[in-house]
Amino acid sequence: MSSDSAQPSLLTPAQFLAHWQGHRALTRRVIAAFPADQLFTFAVGGMRPFGALANEMLGMAVPSVQGMITDEWASFADGGATTKEDVLAQWDATTAQLSALFPNIPAHRFSDTLTAFGQYTQPGIDLLLYLLDNEVHHRGQGYVYLRALGIEPPAFWDRAHPDADAHAS
Amino acid sequence: MSSDSAQPSLLTPAQFLAHWQGHRALTRRVIAAFPADQLFTFAVGGMRPFGALANEMLGMAVPSVQGMITDEWASFADGGATTKEDVLAQWDATTAQLSALFPNIPAHRFSDTLTAFGQYTQPGIDLLLYLLDNEVHHRGQGYVYLRALGIEPPAFWDRAHPDADAHAS
Repeated sequence: MSSDSAQPSLLTPAQFLAHWQGHRALTRRVIAAFPADQLFTFAVGGMRPFGALANEMLGMAVPSVQGMITDEWASFADGGATTKEDVLAQWDATTAQLSALFPNIPAHRFSDTLTAFGQYTQPGIDLLLYLLDNEVHHRGQGYVYLRALGIEPPAFWDRAHPDADAHAS
Repeated sequence: MSSDSAQPSLLTPAQFLAHWQGHRALTRRVIAAFPADQLFTFAVGGMRPFGALANEMLGMAVPSVQGMITDEWASFADGGATTKEDVLAQWDATTAQLSALFPNIPAHRFSDTLTAFGQYTQPGIDLLLYLLDNEVHHRGQGYVYLRALGIEPPAFWDRAHPDADAHAS
């Protein structure tokens, strides 16, 4: 994507981060809504359980932002959590790391063409949009799993970061 | 969201539209992947069939962009399609309308606080992000329905607009 100075900016980096963290707060509520004994076992249609999808999200988030900062690309590893408690702990650690790291992305990196993880060549902003879209996509699948389990999912429109709930599971 | 001129622009309106239309091209492929006799009948966990979700998307897209242009808010109506053929025809008409209308959104409207449809008060960009996120969310549910039907969904990463396929179903 090329920039066009005659057009307004729809999102600054700070606004993108706030939007992403709002989605991440909702994804955390979806993780928390799963019974601990279903998070890594239950799925529909032969797909991955929601715990595996959350591990994928965990494995991409911080390494991607670190790569955006340095243009050096670490390994792209699955979160590797095996329990609900571990997923939620990793989620909260990632939340703090993203807030600390994101402001350090150099301004030009969002429009620079990067080869992320040695294989995905695209402007930096497209990598970030992919992470966000991938999370919303898989979380939508988690909603179906919860409904199939007879559990009411959290409200899609609620992106608040309730500090009081940050460590509830 | 307030703007900060010291920060770079991550997306211009033209870039947002291209990103959205890329997602809409993928959603069209998901609609097309459903057997015609399952689009309005099959669902998992008591949720809405994918045809109903597509009608929701159709009902929001053009009225939202028209509201962004005029700050006058028409009714917010479901697409109302009842057949796969009709959903795809409305999808293609909406694609053309969005491309024609979107460039007419006044630059200030993205950051202005609007009360969309008389009830959703937020900056204009947040309304557009909601439309996009809602589509990705529900399309993720469509992926589960397709898998549950034993059908391979289209690749998530493919956002191309294949003109040659534009009228294939």
